[in-house]
Amino acid sequence: MVKRYKKDLDVSYTLGMTLTIELLKYKLEYVTRIFIHSKLIKNDAYLYIEEVCKKNKIPLIQNDKVFNILAQKENCFVIGEFNKFKADVNKEKNHIVLVNPSNAGNLGTIIRTMVGFNLKDLVIISPAVDIYDPKCVRASMGALFHLNFQYFENFQDYTKEYDSRYYYPFMLQASRNLNEVEIKEPYSLIFGNEATGLDLKYLDYGQSVIIKHSENIDSLNLPIAVSIGIYEVTKEKFK
Amino acid sequence: MVKRYKKDLDVSYTLGMTLTIELLKYKLEYVTRIFIHSKLIKNDAYLYIEEVCKKNKIPLIQNDKVFNILAQKENCFVIGEFNKFKADVNKEKNHIVLVNPSNAGNLGTIIRTMVGFNLKDLVIISPAVDIYDPKCVRASMGALFHLNFQYFENFQDYTKEYDSRYYYPFMLQASRNLNEVEIKEPYSLIFGNEATGLDLKYLDYGQSVIIKHSENIDSLNLPIAVSIGIYEVTKEKFK
Repeated sequence: MVKRYKKDLDVSYTLGMTLTIELLKYKLEYVTRIFIHSKLIKNDAYLYIEEVCKKNKIPLIQNDKVFNILAQKENCFVIGEFNKFKADVNKEKNHIVLVNPSNAGNLGTIIRTMVGFNLKDLVIISPAVDIYDPKCVRASMGALFHLNFQYFENFQDYTKEYDSRYYYPFMLQASRNLNEVEIKEPYSLIFGNEATGLDLKYLDYGQSVIIKHSENIDSLNLPIAVSIGIYEVTKEKFK
Repeated sequence: MVKRYKKDLDVSYTLGMTLTIELLKYKLEYVTRIFIHSKLIKNDAYLYIEEVCKKNKIPLIQNDKVFNILAQKENCFVIGEFNKFKADVNKEKNHIVLVNPSNAGNLGTIIRTMVGFNLKDLVIISPAVDIYDPKCVRASMGALFHLNFQYFENFQDYTKEYDSRYYYPFMLQASRNLNEVEIKEPYSLIFGNEATGLDLKYLDYGQSVIIKHSENIDSLNLPIAVSIGIYEVTKEKFK
């Protein structure tokens, strides 16, 4: 019926009612099946799902075993299954670039902030966590369904395909403070791995930037650093 | 020997080498025991721990069972045990106020950002997650050991004990945008629960503030919102 989620599957899952409604609203053409648990309370949100499924001939299946396989510990009574979609980034738009992100929850949280501030183009440099991991989908709170994203084998491949951009690597070794730097468009804000940050070679790309903080911590948490960066560079647009 | 962590215990735990070193550096007087796993590699970091334990007569105990009880899934070979400490907030200082935070990882991440920007006074309004939960200690990356914090039964009790302050509740219903508001000191930046935010009654306290974002998301993740707030109000001090 279903298998435990793995990166090489063609489908992924939305675990939960609200998330599944976001899926049906924004990626309807990719939805393959909806599963419901026998304990589901059939409220208005459920009736909406039922109606959309009926109208679009999407199978709506009651099967508790699916929940044991996909959502063991979760308090979850609706699961959406969808085909993985492809949505390349735009050349003209501003990008967030994550180099080797390793945590699915962090990635989802970053996507939620990006979409929250209308930055909808994400580049991921491999090796990296799988953006379709249901933990990422969930942490994004459905923001993934508004996102363009693209994986690259290495940073050079990205710069070759998307040239004529302004690069801003965020690094503890950077010389300029975030709120002193003039950010030109289209920009690429670049962030390293959770544990290791960016390699020193990124000092050679564009203008490196630091978010200054006290010496009582080694670094900011990755989603926090990315979100502060996004907030600072987009805030003039949100008034 | 040890029990699985619970809120009503007098002790809590640092799971991991780096975190345990932070504990020994900043809260030495509260440390009761250090546990090591038989698989621990005795590197320089370990030798530092051994030296501090010897010098301060702290029991250093090899016992793999302790790790099964306290750190099941974690890749963890050192655990510090410490007595819970009390560290009331300062009247004169700026405060972060969290109303009913429910997630230990989120709380730890917020503490990490606070200490990162030299905001070291945290007020928590109950019901709320336990700040000594090892998941919170760990997510704080040791920043908890630099923090003053205090729990209150309700917001009124806090305002009675700490009056003469400027209150800034962060709410989606607020009228003023974060980057337009003049923040006066000593301030209290107030944030609601992860799922429900702040009750409308908080509109009556001080100057409510919104971090404006697009309509594609319902709200920002709590640690992200708190961190953006902290960044904006402290950034003049980090140049």
